[in-house]
Amino acid sequence: MKVRVDSPPPLPAEYDVVIEAGALDDLPRRITASGTADRYAIISPDPVAALHGEPLLVAMRNAGLDAELLAFPDGEICKTRETWAALTDRMLALRFGRDSCVIAVGGGVAGDLAGFVAATYMRGVPVIQVPTTLLAMIDAAVGGKTGVDTDAGKNLVGAFHPPRLVVMDPVVLGTLPDAAFHAGLAEAVKHGAMLDAAYFDWIADRASAILQRDTAELQQLVGRSVELKAGVVAGDPFDRGRRAVLNFGHTVAHALERQAAYALPHGLAVSMGMVVEALAGEALGVTEAGTAGRLVDGLRACGLPTVAPAGDTHELMAAMRIDKKAHRDAVHCALPRRIGEAAQAGRGRWTHEVADAMMMDVLMRASRGLDVV
Amino acid sequence: MKVRVDSPPPLPAEYDVVIEAGALDDLPRRITASGTADRYAIISPDPVAALHGEPLLVAMRNAGLDAELLAFPDGEICKTRETWAALTDRMLALRFGRDSCVIAVGGGVAGDLAGFVAATYMRGVPVIQVPTTLLAMIDAAVGGKTGVDTDAGKNLVGAFHPPRLVVMDPVVLGTLPDAAFHAGLAEAVKHGAMLDAAYFDWIADRASAILQRDTAELQQLVGRSVELKAGVVAGDPFDRGRRAVLNFGHTVAHALERQAAYALPHGLAVSMGMVVEALAGEALGVTEAGTAGRLVDGLRACGLPTVAPAGDTHELMAAMRIDKKAHRDAVHCALPRRIGEAAQAGRGRWTHEVADAMMMDVLMRASRGLDVV
Repeated sequence: MKVRVDSPPPLPAEYDVVIEAGALDDLPRRITASGTADRYAIISPDPVAALHGEPLLVAMRNAGLDAELLAFPDGEICKTRETWAALTDRMLALRFGRDSCVIAVGGGVAGDLAGFVAATYMRGVPVIQVPTTLLAMIDAAVGGKTGVDTDAGKNLVGAFHPPRLVVMDPVVLGTLPDAAFHAGLAEAVKHGAMLDAAYFDWIADRASAILQRDTAELQQLVGRSVELKAGVVAGDPFDRGRRAVLNFGHTVAHALERQAAYALPHGLAVSMGMVVEALAGEALGVTEAGTAGRLVDGLRACGLPTVAPAGDTHELMAAMRIDKKAHRDAVHCALPRRIGEAAQAGRGRWTHEVADAMMMDVLMRASRGLDVV
Repeated sequence: MKVRVDSPPPLPAEYDVVIEAGALDDLPRRITASGTADRYAIISPDPVAALHGEPLLVAMRNAGLDAELLAFPDGEICKTRETWAALTDRMLALRFGRDSCVIAVGGGVAGDLAGFVAATYMRGVPVIQVPTTLLAMIDAAVGGKTGVDTDAGKNLVGAFHPPRLVVMDPVVLGTLPDAAFHAGLAEAVKHGAMLDAAYFDWIADRASAILQRDTAELQQLVGRSVELKAGVVAGDPFDRGRRAVLNFGHTVAHALERQAAYALPHGLAVSMGMVVEALAGEALGVTEAGTAGRLVDGLRACGLPTVAPAGDTHELMAAMRIDKKAHRDAVHCALPRRIGEAAQAGRGRWTHEVADAMMMDVLMRASRGLDVV
């Protein structure tokens, strides 16, 4: 005999991303109005916990909300199953039940880690994402990806766990260190390069105002990137097809990060990775000639690195092959057709196979950096 | 500004449960026909790996499927984050990619553990559940619950990850040890007690034939229990309301198991737990008088224990309070109105608060076992 079991979708089927100056101060009021949960666990890495976590905790308690602050050591090196287990155990020790909600306050590491804690705590409690870095705002916080790293690579363990709500306050970007700010810009340039040529040009044009952290300018930057990413995510929530276009630069970037033992900031790795992959795209004939050069100009206007480190290319190739996007050991990359447009590889496929010899060649060319422009 | 992000449901929205003599032998053909994945990781506890995992591996490879067998040490004691991490790392070392599928072969521990590996492997790969115990067939394998235990309690870490397919072969129950078989029967009695009085009576009536492992009888038992459970799960996939009726007996059972350091089989704990909770229901006036007695008769016909161990009731109460179903420290139980019908507690609520003094009283009465019948 055969029994058919209905397995209806999880809730919520959609969520809001609020992008507003002052949104962080307004969070307790917003939470009170929505009545998300009985108890709140604010999870935040050490420095951010002091800067934004503590004030939020006080504001939430003043608003009559039951909240605790759980800090953890900062850095990609702590985005592990061990930190995830420790945070989970602290929530259990504090007797958080199924009516709890996690609030992730911090950069991409906090969002991924706290999101994975929420995804797996008593089989899933809601998470509110409060990204406080540019990179987290325009990349990590939207799309529901959560997870941790293992020795074998980044984000190899995790879950899709869409947030209940995302709150972005451009004001907090005023205190973001320059290096972290630059890193986020790389992902914005990626959105322009793959999805919207006018946005790509706007970023290059307004780069100096953006770098001066003008709040209105930042709100526009974050808003457009979130719109673009949300559009892609909605069409491919589980990353089985077109969402791969958001991985432009990432096959090489992940390998560079692994080679640098994650000491290289993600955004800088993506910046270099996009140049390498655009060169590969041109060599494949997938990407229009001149695209890599235009990309380099845009990245340079933003103060982003465009020259890949001259490392061991064989080691880099090995690191690339373990990447999730590697199918049966061949390296695959998402590539632009031209600035503003992603190149489809075939029906439902958005990554292009790059032969090892070609990849090693463009890696070496990009590490010289001279013949690019 | 505000951006609305669509977050469509994961696939599949429904799945089949195949209950057939010979279904296990037929699995490679079925998998080949459905083309679920590129590679298969069969995850199975040590003794079951030898008994059912190895033959399945050989059959799959003979059918041209790319499969590996990953065994792990048996027992609830191994249903931990550590075993989950070790299995994940072995899959990573074997270079399983996103196009993989996990096949869980074994009892409830294998299903929960392998299901959680699948739920979190590269943010989720499909799982095919192949339960080989009666308990796993009628309880764990349907409904999508996966997870592991921590020191703080059972199933406190996990995810909802509905299987792609569930395959149950009643023939394998022929080699199941008596203790494990009895344990599964307790959950079948629970289905009858909460959902279907005719089924409750059928089990009591056919108990001796069922205990002799007649294949046709077993197919009927498993089939009806799966139908009943699937109906409840479909109406409440994320366990926020009526699915709680499946927890009848479990608030007390989990505490008994924790007190016994998980040396007490789950099904036996559930059998005792149902008697204790039915007594509590009668004391509350929620459950019709005589229900506990009728329940004891049915359980005895199946050779199941109905007398609770005379342990430290204060310790048991503390163990109950950490249970996921405890709201704000009050102990809650799902209860029958009468045999065959669950008692609703209020709009959307299916668990009833049991005061500590009352719970301690019925625990002591059930440990004497005399005044029950």
